[in-house]
Order: sequence, then structure tokens, then C-alpha cells
Amino acid sequence: MSDNPSFVLQAINKVEYEQRPIPEISGDEVLVEVKKTGICGSDVHYWVAGRIGSFVVEKPMVLGHESSGVVNKVGSKVKNLKAGDRVALEPGATCRVCDDCKKGRYELCPDIIFAATPPYDGTLARYYRIPADLCYKLPDHLSLEDGAMMEPLSVGIHSVANTAGFRTNQSIVVFGAGPVGLLCMAVAKALGASRVIAVDIVPSRLEFAKSYAATETYLPPKPNEGESQLKYSERNARTMQEQLGIDERGPRAIDVVIDASGAAVSIQTAVHIARHGGTFVQVLVTPSRNGKQLTLLKVGMGNPEVTLPITQLLVKEVTLKGSFRYGPGDYALAIALVSQGKIDLKPLVTHRFKFEQAVEAFETTKAGKSPDGKPVIKAVISGPDVSPDDH
Amino acid sequence: MSDNPSFVLQAINKVEYEQRPIPEISGDEVLVEVKKTGICGSDVHYWVAGRIGSFVVEKPMVLGHESSGVVNKVGSKVKNLKAGDRVALEPGATCRVCDDCKKGRYELCPDIIFAATPPYDGTLARYYRIPADLCYKLPDHLSLEDGAMMEPLSVGIHSVANTAGFRTNQSIVVFGAGPVGLLCMAVAKALGASRVIAVDIVPSRLEFAKSYAATETYLPPKPNEGESQLKYSERNARTMQEQLGIDERGPRAIDVVIDASGAAVSIQTAVHIARHGGTFVQVLVTPSRNGKQLTLLKVGMGNPEVTLPITQLLVKEVTLKGSFRYGPGDYALAIALVSQGKIDLKPLVTHRFKFEQAVEAFETTKAGKSPDGKPVIKAVISGPDVSPDDH
Amino acid sequence: MSDNPSFVLQAINKVEYEQRPIPEISGDEVLVEVKKTGICGSDVHYWVAGRIGSFVVEKPMVLGHESSGVVNKVGSKVKNLKAGDRVALEPGATCRVCDDCKKGRYELCPDIIFAATPPYDGTLARYYRIPADLCYKLPDHLSLEDGAMMEPLSVGIHSVANTAGFRTNQSIVVFGAGPVGLLCMAVAKALGASRVIAVDIVPSRLEFAKSYAATETYLPPKPNEGESQLKYSERNARTMQEQLGIDERGPRAIDVVIDASGAAVSIQTAVHIARHGGTFVQVLVTPSRNGKQLTLLKVGMGNPEVTLPITQLLVKEVTLKGSFRYGPGDYALAIALVSQGKIDLKPLVTHRFKFEQAVEAFETTKAGKSPDGKPVIKAVISGPDVSPDDH
Amino acid sequence: MSDNPSFVLQAINKVEYEQRPIPEISGDEVLVEVKKTGICGSDVHYWVAGRIGSFVVEKPMVLGHESSGVVNKVGSKVKNLKAGDRVALEPGATCRVCDDCKKGRYELCPDIIFAATPPYDGTLARYYRIPADLCYKLPDHLSLEDGAMMEPLSVGIHSVANTAGFRTNQSIVVFGAGPVGLLCMAVAKALGASRVIAVDIVPSRLEFAKSYAATETYLPPKPNEGESQLKYSERNARTMQEQLGIDERGPRAIDVVIDASGAAVSIQTAVHIARHGGTFVQVLVTPSRNGKQLTLLKVGMGNPEVTLPITQLLVKEVTLKGSFRYGPGDYALAIALVSQGKIDLKPLVTHRFKFEQAVEAFETTKAGKSPDGKPVIKAVISGPDVSPDDH
Ligand SMILES: NC(=O)c1ccc[n+]([C@@H]2O[C@H](COP(=O)([O-])OP(=O)(O)OC[C@H]3O[C@@H](n4cnc5c(N)ncnc54)[C@H](O)[C@@H]3O)[C@@H](O)[C@H]2O)c1
Ligand SMILES: NC(=O)c1ccc[n+]([C@@H]2O[C@H](COP(=O)([O-])OP(=O)(O)OC[C@H]3O[C@@H](n4cnc5c(N)ncnc54)[C@H](O)[C@@H]3O)[C@@H](O)[C@H]2O)c1
Ligand SMILES: NC(=O)c1ccc[n+]([C@@H]2O[C@H](COP(=O)([O-])OP(=O)(O)OC[C@H]3O[C@@H](n4cnc5c(N)ncnc54)[C@H](O)[C@@H]3O)[C@@H](O)[C@H]2O)c1
Ligand SMILES: NC(=O)c1ccc[n+]([C@@H]2O[C@H](COP(=O)([O-])OP(=O)(O)OC[C@H]3O[C@@H](n4cnc5c(N)ncnc54)[C@H](O)[C@@H]3O)[C@@H](O)[C@H]2O)c1
Ligand SMILES: [Zn+2]
Ligand SMILES: [Zn+2]
Ligand SMILES: [Zn+2]
Ligand SMILES: [Zn+2]
Repeated sequence: MSDNPSFVLQAINKVEYEQRPIPEISGDEVLVEVKKTGICGSDVHYWVAGRIGSFVVEKPMVLGHESSGVVNKVGSKVKNLKAGDRVALEPGATCRVCDDCKKGRYELCPDIIFAATPPYDGTLARYYRIPADLCYKLPDHLSLEDGAMMEPLSVGIHSVANTAGFRTNQSIVVFGAGPVGLLCMAVAKALGASRVIAVDIVPSRLEFAKSYAATETYLPPKPNEGESQLKYSERNARTMQEQLGIDERGPRAIDVVIDASGAAVSIQTAVHIARHGGTFVQVLVTPSRNGKQLTLLKVGMGNPEVTLPITQLLVKEVTLKGSFRYGPGDYALAIALVSQGKIDLKPLVTHRFKFEQAVEAFETTKAGKSPDGKPVIKAVISGPDVSPDDH
Repeated sequence: MSDNPSFVLQAINKVEYEQRPIPEISGDEVLVEVKKTGICGSDVHYWVAGRIGSFVVEKPMVLGHESSGVVNKVGSKVKNLKAGDRVALEPGATCRVCDDCKKGRYELCPDIIFAATPPYDGTLARYYRIPADLCYKLPDHLSLEDGAMMEPLSVGIHSVANTAGFRTNQSIVVFGAGPVGLLCMAVAKALGASRVIAVDIVPSRLEFAKSYAATETYLPPKPNEGESQLKYSERNARTMQEQLGIDERGPRAIDVVIDASGAAVSIQTAVHIARHGGTFVQVLVTPSRNGKQLTLLKVGMGNPEVTLPITQLLVKEVTLKGSFRYGPGDYALAIALVSQGKIDLKPLVTHRFKFEQAVEAFETTKAGKSPDGKPVIKAVISGPDVSPDDH
Repeated sequence: MSDNPSFVLQAINKVEYEQRPIPEISGDEVLVEVKKTGICGSDVHYWVAGRIGSFVVEKPMVLGHESSGVVNKVGSKVKNLKAGDRVALEPGATCRVCDDCKKGRYELCPDIIFAATPPYDGTLARYYRIPADLCYKLPDHLSLEDGAMMEPLSVGIHSVANTAGFRTNQSIVVFGAGPVGLLCMAVAKALGASRVIAVDIVPSRLEFAKSYAATETYLPPKPNEGESQLKYSERNARTMQEQLGIDERGPRAIDVVIDASGAAVSIQTAVHIARHGGTFVQVLVTPSRNGKQLTLLKVGMGNPEVTLPITQLLVKEVTLKGSFRYGPGDYALAIALVSQGKIDLKPLVTHRFKFEQAVEAFETTKAGKSPDGKPVIKAVISGPDVSPDDH
Repeated sequence: MSDNPSFVLQAINKVEYEQRPIPEISGDEVLVEVKKTGICGSDVHYWVAGRIGSFVVEKPMVLGHESSGVVNKVGSKVKNLKAGDRVALEPGATCRVCDDCKKGRYELCPDIIFAATPPYDGTLARYYRIPADLCYKLPDHLSLEDGAMMEPLSVGIHSVANTAGFRTNQSIVVFGAGPVGLLCMAVAKALGASRVIAVDIVPSRLEFAKSYAATETYLPPKPNEGESQLKYSERNARTMQEQLGIDERGPRAIDVVIDASGAAVSIQTAVHIARHGGTFVQVLVTPSRNGKQLTLLKVGMGNPEVTLPITQLLVKEVTLKGSFRYGPGDYALAIALVSQGKIDLKPLVTHRFKFEQAVEAFETTKAGKSPDGKPVIKAVISGPDVSPDDH
């Protein structure tokens, strides 16, 4: 094959297939035939809003960044890969020279080239060029779909295993049971959590969470008329403590809280629910789907406002940390845990599309369900000439 | 002497001297003659408002907790102290049995007996009973006033050295140049900070900070008419970056930010001003004096509301931590740094009072200045029969 | 019952049953009826040698420290326990006042009162007095034998989870498959180790390890005639690398090495086998049984001499740490992991004795096998009037 | 200038000046005119022994790696440097791709290209080619000699600030008062050490240490006839404790011990002298000069044998770590501390040579003193056409 069909965002709500030149690779790089690509909330955001915060799509951009594929060609200096290898792709190529890169925090690199983050093209094409060390060989018993799912899983690994420093026998509450939240739960379970409590406002999401990785679930009550957000959050936390038997200290206290819902009330409730000396990690960047459809109103604001109960945070010496993408070791741990059977990614892929059906995949993800009413967790688009039935 | 005059809060705005029985000590305890006691914002709060958050004064309570004294009597099992020893007092006796105590985080002990925190009596009396290990011998060249100042200094040590994990050659911004903020700056300087930037809205406080421990100062602009708090904070941060040459990364970025002002805009500005991967520590619990007089409006609310720029925090992977009082090792480090001449506590004591003048000391602290217009940093009350001229 | 029969070491090789007074308890203490006690190498050492290092038995001492029991009486201030509770006993009561205790490293407390470490009596009696917070309630589905085994398990927890900081998906090599080594393996497995490699010079011990918690085993070759210890260790490491596919770096490198054999060649081999940047923890204090019988020659020396390949250690930046007993949180984690079914203690109890058969239990442990040839892993002595058949 | 005279090791004890081609630089690189180069023990080792451990000089190799210079030319992508900039050179170019590089431990990179470590050429030439990010701009008030000294200083920074995690007010003992040991002391002092104790067997070295950065010094006694090394080390530790008032715990205990002597007895004594829970860092790789002349006997062995008191290490839970070269942030901290006046490098440069006198510089370093009897700490060779009088 010598063509390189690519799925390109031209303008807001306007996507087209284009032929793009096949990328040239340098000595350290690899050319990958992309086989499977998951659709992420951020892809949909660029499609419908043309921007996320200060990242603005100013010229046509190939979408997609959660991908796996097969190595087509390797650069002259590449030793550990060869044509034909099945690989998961880590979609952020960092500068390797700045202080953050050298200090082991490459997720903070200011010069990162991240797939489908303007102005850089993504992976929804036949070919993708990538530094060899960002290709992770897939064990034989893992599928290419598993490979594509390593990207969102690595977000969960980074939040739970690294940022929160989660340890065996700790307890965790995860707000939000979307793909990111579910993967955070899966990671906590794989690391040996004593309790994994899922919180969501959509009952079906909680059911799924329970069947997947949560040990307990919690459905917040509705706010009362005239109740302030902070008062509601306090009440929410109290109700949750009583309902689930959560203490402030001791073995039934909550060691780690993750917010993967992006809702202000989740963040507030989190501060109340965390143990004294506990850790709270914020993982969701962009305004979320709120369980039904994308809330696009806030898109582009960059700074969603959340009012924090700061005295609680102080007196309990809670640590609040932001978790951004993934850093050194996260992909390797993701693959290892799946390979060992500690995390099962298969139940998360709910919808599959051909390369030619990419728009349909985006629309389904945006709607939160397919026309037949089936809720979306993750929609995966196959590469050109790859059947969705080959997982 | 066998009498034990004590300065007792009877009700809001009502204090009286009472004779109290001299405390009996157990084998592990020490009886101390209190010689010097600094007045803290929290003492004043109890006096004027009867409560701080959920701590409510329900029966008469002796005030005062920043104290030093001379050992009068030691319990049968006490080895390292003897009558006549000059000591600084750590005013929180913890349970030593709970998980937090055993894990080295005794500041989180739920059963702490803290001086002048209801229902426990404070130190403004002739005698105070205390476990022997909470008495720290003062080196000969340190004064009893230095000894009393170890308490607020330990708050600074805990925030900067422990909670923030400050290391030599890091840079720091401290919001608020009241006693707590100034001591945070002093600690950062003693630990070898490359830059110590003081921020306050009162120019005279900045002048003092500069003469004391800051290398640079910053006076925030006034908010514009109609400007939202978050917009103002963003502008404040930008102005500060330009004025002081602060970068987002590299050697001119800010490693650690401390908020010792309690102002919402400080907390917001802090998130913007911290480096990628930086640390922000919140140290002030109660509504502060705002540079002029105590803002008592919010007292008792417990949960001052602060709106946080949460996306900034996430994308930069900033760590936000609460710092509460002091823990293992903090007092010892405080005394060592003062003893080695790395911190000078003397300039902070601006006003001195006899035991009989305690009300005057409280009124001066509340007013923020003495009748002659001299601004207060720390007012110290001497013990009964001790002259304020004996520092 | 009002009598308190006790198993007392009178002199080297001389033990006797004595009636001792029933201990009085203070407000913070608990009186426990001891039900099950495991025999540890150190108990046997005191019996046959009268000392371990600088700890010398100078007056009669009750033996035993790996115990569980039932609460008989609680002190006036005890809240979380009541008569009848089944508990595991942490046998070291620390001072709670020294710097190490307060900083969360109580295993280093110089004033620890440790059961059956001279001059303090142990637990092989009907009654044992202990601070309430050192009694850990056993979940209903755990047996009293499980409770007694929490002591050696906590040694494994401390070494692997705390001192080595072992994390899910790391790999581990454990030298020595005696009780301590086996429990280190069990902990590593429970924490989600990717590989658990057992090393021992006794094939049957390796077989057991494989059936219990190891994923791979390694039997070292015999030293060649005239081969120096260091040369042998290098060869041993090389052989091991080849045989098991161990690399110096990457996913097949060894993150953590534990020595629970006490053999000089194990320690040397460990430095070679650890990854660059890896961690090596030494857990065995006293000369060990060497798979057949106790090597008593070195007893009392205190300083077994081990020649280390120091350049290897340096160039690889290996961290070598000593691990002593257990500290805050170790017992709780031990109980949690067993309770969750992640560690099974039952296969380790190979021999059971009545209280009256204590000498037999010691002799069997010393011999390493019972007269019928069955190898000992752990021998457990029941309390007075408790049947060995009631586990 | 277009010539590139270079000082080349041809064979053991055989060095020659050669003309080498001026290196071509790539887009990320810089061509530096080398101005000052310090001579390190390892340079001398290669000269006299042709190898260090497994690193063997198999083809002619330019010597020297402690260098500063002036930028001659920058690659097309270099932004932060321009011709004429005065820079310190970090002489190890790492792969930036391996796990260790990405995780922030680049000192462990297996593919490091280190100046004057076979087979890579060093810096004793007119020109040296180097990645731009390994050039650190020197502040105006620092000299080019200061710049050359950043290399050994960074070894001290890495050991003390990073590997040992040294913190303000900790105490330190440094064995060996050669250049590496002295710089470790300087770093500890700059970080705010409470005590800096220098140990050496050469009294003049101790005097220098005292005048430079030590607060106290200790001269070990001679071993007694027939006394074993371990017995001697125990006695040495005891004598040291008594003479200097060193405790096992508390404020007069030793938090950190560094061995920069390479002597077996130092390493043994270190384990005894470290506090319970203390840290011991081994920094010296190669057999050292032993205060008089290079002990070359062991060169090439790779594994100097040191017998460790392993029980002491275990019971005290001492951490022993190897420290190798320097990693992320070390050079920057070195320059900052010198720039702030916290470390003075000038007293360490005792001998200065022209480029043409390189052999003399090596001979002087090997002898440990110049013909006039003046002891060498550091000898510096100027670049071609640079006067030794221009520091
Ligand atoms: N931190 C990072 O590095 C990172 C990396 C990748 C993606 N992301 C972000 O993650 C997002 C995708 O996440 P997702 O796909 O899981 O989102 P999602 O919208 O599918 O899930 C959010 C969940 O939160 C629930 N929720 C809403 N309000 C709630 C409330 N008040 N309480 C409890 N639950 C509530 C919703 O019902 C929903 O189930 C994208 O926007 C992307 O920007 C972040
Ligand atoms: N965290 C803890 O453990 C701890 C311990 C002891 C005391 N405290 C608290 O500390 C308080 C005492 O602190 P203090 O005496 O230093 O307070 P203070 O009122 O003297 O100082 C606060 C400073 O912040 C400045 N400020 C106000 N608004 C600002 C803004 N927008 N930007 C910049 N600066 C601004 C004020 O001008 C003032 O100088 C007490 O209320 C007590 O509760 C906390
Ligand atoms: N670190 C601590 O805090 C702590 C706590 C409790 C007990 N201990 C110590 O642990 C000891 C009990 O341990 P144990 O009961 O497991 O000992 P053990 O003697 O049963 O086991 C040691 C094992 O090491 C094996 N071994 C011997 N030489 C070997 C070699 N060269 N290579 C590989 N394996 C080799 C032996 O065959 C044996 O299986 C007691 O002496 C006690 O002092 C230490
Ligand atoms: N760890 C690293 O990354 C690193 C980096 C650069 C250099 N090095 C090594 O450092 C060495 C250079 O170090 P140096 O120049 O300071 O060495 P040096 O020989 O000048 O100093 C060693 C000192 O130890 C003293 N000493 C010897 N025996 C002693 C004893 N028993 N007790 C106390 N002191 C004793 C000697 O008198 C001497 O003063 C080189 O060999 C090099 O390989 C290590
Ligand atoms: Zn970078
Ligand atoms: Zn407590
Ligand atoms: Zn103690
Ligand atoms: Zn590398």
C-alpha cells in the first residue's frame, strides 16, 4: 500500500477524509500502520468546539490519539522493534532535553508533540510516525483493541498508581464512572484496593461500575431547592458516610479520592470524604458529558470554577494533586497489569466502527449512546482495510 | 509561691483573673512556671467570638498557648529535665496511641489536648502542667521570649520544611506578611531559599518583610470595578510575573507557594504563580486580620469559600496541601535554627505587657496597633511577677 | 482460673514450668489469655545459647512472642476491646515518647519492652499483660493460629511493603525459604509481584516455596574447590541470570532482593542480581538454621562478617537497607491481607503441641524436623488447657 | 583557529599531543573551546593503569572531563546559547530514551557517552562537541576555573543533596578529605549542616578541611598489632564517639555518613557511627590515593572487598546507598550554590598548568604534591593558548 487516507478535522463540525503523504521516518523513529483507535472526549471536543482551553485548531488536523498498530518500517537505529510487531502507541513525543523531561516528569514537557492536540496531527490515518521508544510491544495474548485502550488506561495508572501513590489495601472513592473513572477503579482493584467506591449520578453507569471493578457504589441525592452547592456537597458527603459506613479515620476511612467527573460538587464532596492525611487527585481536564450529552457551554473557558472547602482541606492536611496524562513507566505498567489478567479492558469497548464510519463513531460518542439506545463507554474505529470484527 | 493566678475567658468579650488550683503532675509530667506568652490570632478570636469553627468555648477557659517558662517540678519518671530548666512549651499533648500518632503525624491526632482550644485550658497562668517530652530546653543564649516564639515558628517550620518539603535553593512566594507569613519567610531563608517573595496588601508589612527575611516584595494592584475575583487573580498573577521576572519553568519559576493571608485572591493567584510541578501550602485556618483589623464576619463559618482555578492546577500537576500546626521534629528544628543564628525572632516582638495588662495586650493585638500607632507583629505577656523588660 | 503456669528459661538448655502471679493491668492495658504461640528461631537461640548478640538472659525469662489469645480483662480506659475478643498480639511495647516513636519509626525505640527478649518475659504462659493498642481484633473467619502467625508475617510486611517499598508489578528475589523468607514471598505475591523467585540450598524448601508463593525457584550450585566466596557469588549470580532469564535492566530485571537466609553468599549474590537502582533488604538478624540444624557457632558474636562487592553497589546505585521487626501499620496490613484471602497462613503451621509439650516443640524446631522426618516450618504451642486440634 | 591540538593517552604511561579534526556539530549540539580542565583521580588511573574496572582503554583516547569553556558555535536548533557564552560542561551525554533516562535517573543510563571513559574521547583539546543542554552558562562573577570545578562539585551534590537527601540541620561525617570528600563537606555546609565532621588519616588534610568546610575533625588511631579490621573499626567508632561527643540517637547523633575515602575501615566505621535510621552513602569508586600516593594494586579488580558489620546495619535500620556521578538538577544546584557564595571553590585549586604542561599536571596529581612539596588538592590545565594566570 502506498496511500495514506486520513480523517481530518477541517473546521468546527466539519471532518473529511484526505490523502496525506506517508511520513518519512528518522533513525530513531518507526512507521506504524494504525489498526485500532479509541475515541476520547477530547477528540469530540475538538470536533464540536474547535478548541480545548488555549489549544485552538487553526489548521486542518488529523484526529485520534488512542491507538495501536503494526510496525511497518523501523529507522536505522531502532533495535527493539521490527516490521510486523504489534504495538500500543504512546501519543506524546517529548523533547527529552528540558528539566521536566530530564527529572522524570515528562508529562510536564512544554514542547510535547501530542497526537491530535493542535497543531499536531493525530493517529486516525493509515500511517503514523512515532519515536521507537513510544511503541510498546503487545504480548501475544493481548488484542489490538487492548493496545488502543492502553492510552486511557495509562491515564488511570498515572492518577492512581503514580500521582496518588496508591498502595495495596488502601481504599478509594472514584467520582465519575465514565471511561476514565472506570479505568481508575480498575487500576485501584489491580493494585489490591480494599474498597473501590464508584460515585455517579447515572444509575446505569453505577451498575456497570459494580460489574466491572467497584466493590460498592453510591448515587448522590438530588440537591434541595435553594441549597447552596457547598451545603449540598456537605450533605452529600454525610449521606455517603452513613450509607457506606465511611469513617474519618481508621480502616473504614478513605485513603484516596479521584475525581473523574469534573463536577464541582464531586470535588467539594471529595474534600469532605477523604481521611485525615488523605490524598485527592483531580484527573478530568475538560467539561464532561454529565452522563447524557456533552455540556459544551464551558468549552474554551479553560478555568472551570470550583469552590473548595479550604478549611477542611487544611485541618485534615489533605493533599490535592492534579494528574495530567501519563509519565515514565505508566504505559509499561498498564500493559503488564492487563497482560497478567489483573485488568480486563474488553468490557469497555461497547461500539466498533470501520475507518469509513468515523463520523458515526464520533456522533455516537457525542450522543452517549448508539441509535439502538446502547450506552457508549468506548467506541473504537478500525484502521483502513481493518475489520471491526478483528479485535 | 502557692497561688496560681490565671487569665480566664468567661464569655465573649469577658475575661477575668481567677485563682486556680496548682495542677498535680503525674510521673511523666512537669510543672512549669510560665514566663512569656505570645498572643495569637486564635486567642483573640476566642475572646471576641467565643469560637473558631466547630471549637466552641462552653465553659470558662484559660487563654494563651505560645509560651515558655521555667521548670518548677518534675514527675518521678522524668530524666531529661530538672527544676530551674528554661524551656519552650509545645502546647499540644497527643494520645500517642492512635494510628496518626504512631505513624508520625501526631498533628492529626483526634484526641489532642491543645492549650486554649476548648475545652482545654491554656498557659496564661502562673503554672502549666505538661508532659515532659513537650518541654524543649532552651540553649543559654536564647531568651524566654525566643522560647515563646517557638510556637508560631514551629507553624512556619511545619508548613515550609515539612509540608512543602522545602529544599535549599528553591524559591518561595509567601502571601501574607503577618506573624505566620513572616516566620514562613524566615524558615525559607534559613533553609537556603534562592528567592523569598513577600506579598501583602499593606505596604508597611512589606517593608518589614523586606528588612526581615524577604528578598523581594510585591504589592497587589486594586481590583478593577466589576472584575470577577478569578479574573482579578489572573491579572494579579500576570502582573506579579512581569514585575518580578517570574517564569513558568526553570530557575526563575516558583517552587513553593505558601498562603498565610487567608484571602481568596491569594489562593487563586497562588495556583497561577506556582511552577509546573510546584507545591502550594495553605497555612492559615481562620479569617485573618486583613492588615488592619480582624474581619470577624466569617468567624464560626468553618468553611470559607474559595473558588479555585482547577484546570490550571491539573495541567500543571500542582500539589496543594493543608498544613496544620506542627508535628514530630518541628519544635526541635525551630530551636536549632534560632540557636544557630539562622533565624532571628527578636524583631517580631513589638509589644510587651505585664501579666496584669493581658486585656491591653489582647486589645492591642485586635487593633493591629498600639494607641501610639505602632503596628503590632507579636505582643508578649509576661508571667505573674515577671517584668516585661526581662526578655 | 486464677493460676498462671509459665514456660520459663532458667539457664542454657534448662526450661521449667513455673507458677507466676497473674499480672495487674493499668487503665490502658489488657489481660490476655494466650491461646497459640509460634516458636521462632530466636526463642530457640535463647534456649540453647542464652543470648543473641548483646541480649543476654541473666535471670529466668518466660519464652515466646508469636502469640494470639482471648481478652480476659480490659483496663478502665480501654474502649475498643472487651473480654472475649480474639486478638493477635504485637509483642513490642514502645515508649511512645522518644524521637523514633514520635517520628513513626517505633521499631527503633531504645526502650522497647519486647516479649522474650531479656530482661522481659514472653508470652508462653496462661496470661499476658499488654497495652490495648497492641491487641488486634481478629476477623471471625481467621483462626487463633492465624493470629499467632501475624507476628512473623508482620516481619515480612515490614521488610517487603515498608522497608523495600515494594509496589505492584515489581519483581523480587528472596534468599532463604524458611518461615521468614516464605512470608516475604507471600507478602510480595499479595502486593501483586510480577515475579517471586525463591532461592534456597535445600530442594524441599524450594518445592514448598513453589507450592506456596514463589513463581520461580533457584537452587545455587555448590562452590568449586578453592573458589573464593566472592568469586562463587559472582558465578552464582551469573548462573541465576542465565537460568531464570534475569536482566540488569528493563522488565526482566530484579527490583527488590530480600535476604532471609543470613548466608554471606546470599548477600553477595544479592548485590549482583539487583537491578541498577534496585533495593536490597536484609531481614535476618541471627545466624540461621542453614536448612538442617541451627548453626550456633556464631551465636553471640553480634557481627557476622559479610564481604560486600561495594563497587557493584555503588555503580548500580543499589540501596541496601536493614529491616528490623515491624513498625506502625504493619500488623494492620498483615491482618488485612490474610483476611482478604491474599495470604494463606495455614500451610505454614506444620507442627502443633500442647502447652505441656513445649520442650518437644523447641526440640523439633531445633532439629528442623519431627522424629517422623517431617520438616518443620512453624511449630505452634497451644495455651494451657487449649487443644492443639482447635486451630 | 582551525587546529585542534589534543592530549591523547596512547598506552599505559604514554601520552602525546595530536592534531585531531575539529568535530562537526549537529543541530542540538554546541562546539566549545575548552578553557580549563581539572585532573581527576580517574584520569590518572587510566594513564597509569589503562583501565578502571571493566572500562579498558583499547584505542587512543583524549583525557580530561572536568572542564569549562567558551561556546564557539551552536547548532541550528540551539536557542539558549550563543557563541561567546562561558559555560561549565557536564561530560556525560545520555541516551534520553532508556527507562533510567526517562525516569529521572540518567546517571544509570547504560549508553552514556562519558568524556575520557573508554572508548569516548575527553575534553583535553582545543575543541569539544557537546549537546547544548549539557552546557551551563556561568554567571559573570564566576570564573572559568569555577566552571571546571562544577564537575567534582556535582559529584558532591549528587551524593549529599540527592542520594543522601541531606536536609538543613542534619549532621554529617565525611570519611576522606580529598577533593571529593571536601566537596561533600562544602555541600553539607551549604545546605545548612549542624555538624560537618571530617575524617582522614593525613593530619594536613584535616587541617585543610577545618579551614574549608568542616566544623570538627577526627584523626583515626593506628590499628593495634594483630587487631582484625572489624575490631579496629569498632574501636575507631567508639573512640570517635567519645572524642567528638557523638550519640546513637538524638541531636548529637549522626544523620548522614559519606565515604569518600574508599578505605574498608572507613566503610565499617561508618555503619557503627551512623544513627539508628541513618543513611550511609558510598561515593568513591576507585581505590584512592590514601593520602600519599595512588594505591594502584587493586586497580582493575572492580570489586574491592569490604567486610560489613551487617547485624549493626540491620538492627539500626541503616540505609546504605551507592552514589554514581550526577543526575538531573545536580549541575544546576552546584552552580547556584557557588553563585550565591555558599560554596567557595577557589581554595581547592592548588596547582595550575599550561596546556603544554599536561604531563606535569598528571605527575603532580599522581605524586600528591608538587616538587616544592605543596600538597595537591586540584590541578587545573588551561586550554591551548590560555594562560594559567587567567583563572
Ligand atoms: N487528566 C488527564 O490527563 C486526562 C487524560 C485523558 C482524558 N482526560 C479527560 O477525560 C475526559 C473523558 O473522561 P470520561 O470519558 O470518563 O468522561 P465522561 O463524561 O464519560 O464521564 C464523566 C462521568 O461523571 C459523571 N458525573 C457527572 N456529574 C457527576 C456528579 N455530580 N457526581 C458524580 N458523577 C458525576 C457522569 O455521569 C459521567 O458518567 C475528557 O474530557 C478528557 O479531557 C483527562
Ligand atoms: N495552619 C496552622 O496550623 C496555624 C497555626 C497557628 C495559627 N494559624 C492561624 O494563623 C492566624 C494568624 O496568622 P497571622 O497572625 O500571620 O495573620 P495576620 O492577620 O497578622 O496576617 C495576614 C496578612 O495577610 C495580609 N493579606 C490580607 N489580604 C491579602 C491579600 N489579598 N493578598 C496578600 N496579603 C493579604 C494581611 O495584610 C496580613 O498582613 C490565626 O488566625 C491562626 O488561626 C494557623
Ligand atoms: N529482621 C527481623 O526483624 C527479624 C524478625 C524476626 C525474626 N528474625 C530472624 O529470623 C530468623 C528466623 O528466620 P527463619 O526461621 O526463616 O530461618 P530459617 O533458618 O528457617 O531459614 C533460613 C533459610 O535460608 C536457607 N539458606 C541457608 N544458606 C543459604 C544460601 N547460601 N543460599 C540460599 N539459601 C540459604 C536455609 O536453607 C533456610 O531454608 C531468626 O533467627 C530471627 O532472628 C528477624
Ligand atoms: N562516585 C562517583 O560518582 C565519583 C565521581 C568522580 C570521582 N569519583 C572517584 O573519586 C576518586 C577521587 O576522589 P578523591 O580525589 O577525593 O580521592 P583522594 O585519594 O584524594 O582522597 C581520599 C582521601 O581518603 C583518605 N583516607 C584514606 N584512608 C583513610 C582511612 N582509613 N580513613 C579516613 N580517610 C582515609 C586519604 O588520606 C585521602 O585524603 C576517583 O578515584 C574517582 O574514581 C567518584
Ligand atoms: Zn521536555
Ligand atoms: Zn493520637
Ligand atoms: Zn520510643
Ligand atoms: Zn539512557
